[in-house]
Amino acid sequence: MSENRIIYLPLGGAGEIGMNCYVYGYGKPDEERLIVVDLGVTFPDMDTSPGVDLIFADITWLKERRDRIEAIFITHAHEDHVGAVGHYWEQLGAPIYARAFTANIARHKMAEHGHSPETVRTASAWPETITAGPFTVGFMPISHSIPESSGLVIDTPSGRVVHTGDFKIDETPVVGEPFDRDAWAELGRSGVKALVCDSTNVFSHHEGRSEALVGPEVEKLLRSASGMVVATTFASNVARLKTLAEAGVKAGRSIVLMGRAMRRMVEAAAETGVLKNFPSVVPVENANDIPRENLMLIVTGSQGERRAASAQLARGKHFGIELKEGDLFLFSSKTIPGNEKGVIRIMNQLSELGVDVVDDSSNLYHVSGHANRPDLEAMHDLVKPQIVVPMHGEHRHLREHAKIADSKGMQGVLAVNGTMVDLTGNAPKIVDYIETGRTYLDGSVQIGALDGIVRDRIRMALNGHVMVTVILDEADEPLGDPWCDLNGLPETGRSRHSLVEMLEEELGQALMRAGRKVLADDDKIEETLRRAARNACQNEIGKKPEITVVVSRLSA
Amino acid sequence: MSENRIIYLPLGGAGEIGMNCYVYGYGKPDEERLIVVDLGVTFPDMDTSPGVDLIFADITWLKERRDRIEAIFITHAHEDHVGAVGHYWEQLGAPIYARAFTANIARHKMAEHGHSPETVRTASAWPETITAGPFTVGFMPISHSIPESSGLVIDTPSGRVVHTGDFKIDETPVVGEPFDRDAWAELGRSGVKALVCDSTNVFSHHEGRSEALVGPEVEKLLRSASGMVVATTFASNVARLKTLAEAGVKAGRSIVLMGRAMRRMVEAAAETGVLKNFPSVVPVENANDIPRENLMLIVTGSQGERRAASAQLARGKHFGIELKEGDLFLFSSKTIPGNEKGVIRIMNQLSELGVDVVDDSSNLYHVSGHANRPDLEAMHDLVKPQIVVPMHGEHRHLREHAKIADSKGMQGVLAVNGTMVDLTGNAPKIVDYIETGRTYLDGSVQIGALDGIVRDRIRMALNGHVMVTVILDEADEPLGDPWCDLNGLPETGRSRHSLVEMLEEELGQALMRAGRKVLADDDKIEETLRRAARNACQNEIGKKPEITVVVSRLSA
Repeated sequence: MSENRIIYLPLGGAGEIGMNCYVYGYGKPDEERLIVVDLGVTFPDMDTSPGVDLIFADITWLKERRDRIEAIFITHAHEDHVGAVGHYWEQLGAPIYARAFTANIARHKMAEHGHSPETVRTASAWPETITAGPFTVGFMPISHSIPESSGLVIDTPSGRVVHTGDFKIDETPVVGEPFDRDAWAELGRSGVKALVCDSTNVFSHHEGRSEALVGPEVEKLLRSASGMVVATTFASNVARLKTLAEAGVKAGRSIVLMGRAMRRMVEAAAETGVLKNFPSVVPVENANDIPRENLMLIVTGSQGERRAASAQLARGKHFGIELKEGDLFLFSSKTIPGNEKGVIRIMNQLSELGVDVVDDSSNLYHVSGHANRPDLEAMHDLVKPQIVVPMHGEHRHLREHAKIADSKGMQGVLAVNGTMVDLTGNAPKIVDYIETGRTYLDGSVQIGALDGIVRDRIRMALNGHVMVTVILDEADEPLGDPWCDLNGLPETGRSRHSLVEMLEEELGQALMRAGRKVLADDDKIEETLRRAARNACQNEIGKKPEITVVVSRLSA
Repeated sequence: MSENRIIYLPLGGAGEIGMNCYVYGYGKPDEERLIVVDLGVTFPDMDTSPGVDLIFADITWLKERRDRIEAIFITHAHEDHVGAVGHYWEQLGAPIYARAFTANIARHKMAEHGHSPETVRTASAWPETITAGPFTVGFMPISHSIPESSGLVIDTPSGRVVHTGDFKIDETPVVGEPFDRDAWAELGRSGVKALVCDSTNVFSHHEGRSEALVGPEVEKLLRSASGMVVATTFASNVARLKTLAEAGVKAGRSIVLMGRAMRRMVEAAAETGVLKNFPSVVPVENANDIPRENLMLIVTGSQGERRAASAQLARGKHFGIELKEGDLFLFSSKTIPGNEKGVIRIMNQLSELGVDVVDDSSNLYHVSGHANRPDLEAMHDLVKPQIVVPMHGEHRHLREHAKIADSKGMQGVLAVNGTMVDLTGNAPKIVDYIETGRTYLDGSVQIGALDGIVRDRIRMALNGHVMVTVILDEADEPLGDPWCDLNGLPETGRSRHSLVEMLEEELGQALMRAGRKVLADDDKIEETLRRAARNACQNEIGKKPEITVVVSRLSA
């Protein structure tokens, strides 16, 4: 029982897409030294998290073991892997390691929270390694949709674990290192205990397509366009930015980048030397000097975000640029589930301006950054692990991926957030379930997803809100009828009379009927008025609003 | 100027998918006699209409011309065409015409609002016609995904308009009349002024596929399944229900229907004779007597609706039935944009139960009920109209459809909700723009989408709510500090002190600083306290909540 063991514990990203956060441990049970892989975010929505700014994995378990954390490793610079470093670093306190481009992005995030650049250390690629307690960790280059994405080779005294990070198999990725089959096969030959492997595209049955296929198609499209062309994609997809810009230049267009996040990414890529030969870019202020047919904007907002450049251009003039009849707008991107309505809104606004919209439905202008099913199998075959731990995926993705592993004679293990897996032996063992969840950044405050705060907001949004104010004198006698203020409710209902007046009358009568015992007790008054108000509303408007009763007493 | 004219005025469905409501008029300008085609609904979402129950087209324009309405025609029984009849009929007052199946559904809706069955008159199919003022209207059978769908042949003294309703071209539709090319071509030969035509699938470039293709694929899938099978689709897709049930029976399974809406549809179809040879169905109470491998449930909830049977089964036991490892769940449906997250939630819950999920991504188990681009062109070619008026579609669909018409030498006209088009001459003329919008059914009350009620709810959901109560005595002196109640806000912020206490202190100080002029004026007190509360919150929690201030004064 007191033998050293290797543990794997996902806190985010296993059972969802986004918010990646994985923990590895090595040592005697409950004394393992720990490393953290990725500190990502996910994004709120109106259905489940209205008013919330960002969502992080709940790291309570880690915070309680802070003295055991050796280091934090960031696989790549996507928000769902690096987005929480600035918010969480103080609570964890360990050094952060990342390759140069990722480190550049991470340092900016740290600086926004007042942390020094030295908190983030630049790591070189495999075969160089970092020693972190009992772990020796190497950043193994892998192709994805952002520069310097890396898998991690995690060596322990009890064996090797390979953590793929997000990846695709792309031997012509436009930006960044091509996928190196030999290097990955070499890892396999040295014996790998467990492959912890990206799962998001496990239901895509065709082989993944290379980034290099996109450029020629975009160029063809651009050559057919007679007006201005706008293309949008993820700000962080540096390879796509280059693909688009190069296609634009080849088609005789000047390139303008719009959107802070996108310019930041290109800057970081240029600063760290990972983006070579990016076409020269025209400042947005000079865009109007260029004939429309020679202009290409590359802009943020591919997911329909209301404040991004795509949405602004669709609504009208933005930075002096106005789209019009005959212009072309290209979504070189996939719409993430949940963002459809926002994207469709923009498409229709563009249609109203007379702009032709092209999306990825033809499969010509976008390729995924993740490994499809055949590519996942290829990765299994290269690395030849004993155990496959599917990560980064919803439950259905993890389950399907584990099934594939099992069917091929490896040991698949389905471990969602909070599942602690012992990877030491020949078969994976689930040894614990940890309480996990989500932490919301709400304004400047971190709140728990289950604190009830957001639940109360949702209730107000669904039901409306009635505030009832009642004042009682020293003898517990109400001073007049209670007052009602409505928020998010109609002024009149079934009877066509003022809802406020009707409620105030009803509540006044309820107080009149109430005995001295009720009037002497704030809780009982509250309960009486709440019940009366809800019933009256149900009757009058067919809804039961949230009710807040404020009882004020004049002290003697 | 005083010549009779034919007008077309969409109030809903043109510029959106759903909420169909079209007006035709014939007569002298501003004295036209009117008919209404369809009275549909659309569905609310948390982003734009939290708490709302249903959404209707704003029919103010029609209500103001109530004495000019001759009749209401319902093309088919989908909610987005018939859903508002019960809610709106009293405000319009004209007789409703529909074919037997649609009329059956409409009568149930009317009965729910206390209206007599006689308000809905059953119409026979073309070549029989109904006279409504200057209009002669025939129900022309057309294939879609619900029985007795019809186009309308609308004859006026100045010519013929053909309104397709929703349709696909399906010569083997499983339920209902096959698409009859000859009959439609015959209409074309008699001379058609305008074709008002479904547009939803204009961006689908392949020819539509027949309902008859689905059954054999489902049967194959069922034969490969070893546990219980559950299939979900739209409750109203009676053809699909039959396809699924027949495939189930062929694969040796007993059929159970779950979900009120679905049983209601099958009943209506049976009552009106449009559903023949539907396999016999086992009551849900007896489902557990049947071995799992011989059971097939056909259930509601294909769009992820939380209260429908699919969601209930995914969450656990429902009507005594429990899904488990080895069962199969088929989504024989397309996910409507906006519903992705709900559907994915169910898929993951099913995955947690060990259930295998099959969706329509293979294109084998679902076909659309709408005409794709080649089918729209086929319709143009059959009917040979002078004018094509694209309807039922978002702006981008209507625009694309109009472009197709133009490119083929017809006159396409882009008319979104509120655009009045004169169809009398050889070319369509836009003659007016009417104020249109949406009406929300909120509980039992109809409210305007722009009344500010729902906006206030959204604000509370995004920002949280602070209620401030202050009592002043006869001399305008505050009795103690103001009181604060929070809703949807954290208890503590930056300072880690109670947010309520901090606010009450800040507001107390603000009142102390306030002069007599402010204290004498409720509005000024309110403004002072609101500003102080918002600033304090911004500082403490990084958010500016909604603030309600209730000022109470003790009268002398």
